[in-house]
Amino acid sequence: MEIRHIAIVGTGIMGNSWAIVYARAGFRVSLYDREAGPRALAPQKIRTALEHSRPLLRDGDTVDGVLERITVRGELVDAVSGAQFVHECIEEKIDSKKAIFAELSKLAEPNAILASSTSSFPVSTFASELDNRERCIVVHPATPPHLLPVTEVCPAPFTDEDVTSAVFALLRECGQVPVLIKREIPSFVLNRLQGALIVEMFRCLNDDIISPADMDTIISEGFGLRWAFLGPFEAADLSSSGGVREYFERFGFIFNAIASDFGIAEPVVVPASIDKIERYVRERLPISAIASRAQWRDESIISLRTLKISQRSPTLDSDGPSGGIE
Amino acid sequence: MEIRHIAIVGTGIMGNSWAIVYARAGFRVSLYDREAGPRALAPQKIRTALEHSRPLLRDGDTVDGVLERITVRGELVDAVSGAQFVHECIEEKIDSKKAIFAELSKLAEPNAILASSTSSFPVSTFASELDNRERCIVVHPATPPHLLPVTEVCPAPFTDEDVTSAVFALLRECGQVPVLIKREIPSFVLNRLQGALIVEMFRCLNDDIISPADMDTIISEGFGLRWAFLGPFEAADLSSSGGVREYFERFGFIFNAIASDFGIAEPVVVPASIDKIERYVRERLPISAIASRAQWRDESIISLRTLKISQRSPTLDSDGPSGGIE
Repeated sequence: MEIRHIAIVGTGIMGNSWAIVYARAGFRVSLYDREAGPRALAPQKIRTALEHSRPLLRDGDTVDGVLERITVRGELVDAVSGAQFVHECIEEKIDSKKAIFAELSKLAEPNAILASSTSSFPVSTFASELDNRERCIVVHPATPPHLLPVTEVCPAPFTDEDVTSAVFALLRECGQVPVLIKREIPSFVLNRLQGALIVEMFRCLNDDIISPADMDTIISEGFGLRWAFLGPFEAADLSSSGGVREYFERFGFIFNAIASDFGIAEPVVVPASIDKIERYVRERLPISAIASRAQWRDESIISLRTLKISQRSPTLDSDGPSGGIE
Repeated sequence: MEIRHIAIVGTGIMGNSWAIVYARAGFRVSLYDREAGPRALAPQKIRTALEHSRPLLRDGDTVDGVLERITVRGELVDAVSGAQFVHECIEEKIDSKKAIFAELSKLAEPNAILASSTSSFPVSTFASELDNRERCIVVHPATPPHLLPVTEVCPAPFTDEDVTSAVFALLRECGQVPVLIKREIPSFVLNRLQGALIVEMFRCLNDDIISPADMDTIISEGFGLRWAFLGPFEAADLSSSGGVREYFERFGFIFNAIASDFGIAEPVVVPASIDKIERYVRERLPISAIASRAQWRDESIISLRTLKISQRSPTLDSDGPSGGIE
C-alpha cells in the first residue's frame, strides 16, 4: 500500500515538527489536536519553523507550498480518514497512549500503519490488545525531527515486517535517517545514550570535580566537533593505525574500569562486540583507507570550527566558552 | 615569568600536535624525543598536519613560518634549556612519567612549568617527591589539540596557583579552551564523559538491541549535530520554556532510572546540582532569551547539515549513514 496521505495526532512540538517533515517531502498531512487552542496556533508555529529552516526545503518548494499540504482537523475521524500512515504525538503517559491507540484502531483505515512518537514506552505496553496490533510500531525521533534526521524505529514482536519496511522507506523518502531497535526496551537507545553521558556529568558535578560550564565546554569544544561527523565507534577506528580492533583491545580496560566505577559488575568491552564493531567499520572502510578518512575527519572539523566562528550567537551576554578560571 | 620558549618531550601524535599549537601562536618550540627514528620523522609529519589545517593559521602566517619556530633536539638538556614551559608527551605508563619528571626536575630551568599530557594519572601519582613539585601540573587535551580546542588543566593540591593561572593564560593565547579539573581523579573528566557514552553503547551492543552502525548514526545524525554547538546542559536549557531547572525537575527521574540501571544506588539528579547548572546558564542567558537562542541553535544545526553535504567523504565505499534495514 503506497503512503500518500499522513495523519498526525497532537500539535505539540513533536506533532508540528513531523507535519513539516512529511509535508516537506510532498505528502498530504492532516493534523489533529483535541484541544482548540493548540490547533489554532499550529499553522503559525509551523510557518515560523519553516521560515527558520528554508535551506531544508526541496528545490523549488516554498514555505507556502509546504503549508498548503497541511490541513488542520478538529475531529479525529476526519484526520485519519484516507490516511495510510498515522503518527501519534500526544503526551507521554501510558494511559493516554493506550486510549488513543484503542481509538485509532477503530477510526483509522484498516490497513493504516499506526506509529507512536513515544520516547519511553514499547508498543507492547499499549497496543498488545488491539485487533490490528501487527500494524503498530514506535517511530521516535531526535527532537525536533524537522532538524535532526535520526529516528528510532522499534517494532513489537507482533509487528508485521512489512510495516517496519514501509516505515523505513517512508522515513528515508523524507530525508530522515531511521535506525532499528531490534528488541523492545524502555527508553529505546537514543535516550539511553544521551542519558549515560548526562548521568556521568551529574556525578562529576555532585562530586564538585568540575563546573557545569566546563563540562558543557568539554562536549562543545571537544567531542562534539568530531561527533558531528562520526559516531564514537567510527571515531575510535580512526584513532589507531590498526583500526577499531586495536583501539578497543588496547583501551578496553579503561571503559571496563569506568563501567565498574558505575557499579556494572561484568566487563562491557567484550570480544564478541569488538568483532561486531570491526565488521561494521571494515565493511565501509578498508584499513588501508584509515589515513585518508582521518584527513577527511580533520578537514571536516576545521570547516566546522570556521562555521562556528561565523555563527557566533548575538544572544549571549559573553560569547565564547565560559567557565575555566578568570 | 613570561613564557616565550616551550619544550616538548615526545614526538608522538600528541607531542607533534602540541608543537603545532604553540608554534602557530608564535612561540619558539624545542621538540625532543629520545628515539632517533620518530625525531627524524617529526618535521615532515608536522608539515603535513599544518598543510591539512591551513585555515587555523594566524593571519599572514605560513606553514614554513610555523615550522621555522620549531627545532628538533636530540638531547633533553638542550631541549629544555631556556624553556619557561615544558610539556611532557611520552608513553602513558606511570613508571615512565615518574622517570621523566625526575629528570625534568633536574634539567629544566628552575622556574619552568612542568606540564604532563597524561590522560589518566594525576600529578600527585608521579611528581609528589620532586623538589619543584609546586610547578608540576596536568595539561591534557582532546586529541589532537591542534584541531580540538578543549584542554583539561588539573593541578595537584601542591601545585602553585600562579602555575595554574599561567597555564590558563598560555592556552587561551594559543586559542585553546582550558577547563579546570578542581580535584585530582583518575582519567579526569574528558575521558570519563566519553567513557560513559561508550560503556552504554557496548551494553546495548552486548544485549543485541541495536547494530553498531545504527548507534554511530544516533550520534552523528542526532545529538552530535547539537553538541557541536552546545553542551548537554545548555541544550537542556533550550528544551524547556522554563529552562534547565524545569527540564531536570521534570525529566530527572529518567536519568535517575538510567543511573539505577547502571547500578548507581543514589539518585544523580539532585537539587544542589540543578542549582549549580541553573546559575551557570542563567548568568549567560536570561530566561527571556531562550527562544532567540533556540533559533540560533536551529540555524546552526541547519548550517552544519549543509556543511556535511558539501563535505561528503570520497573514501567510503557507500556514503551516508549505514545500518538500519535494507
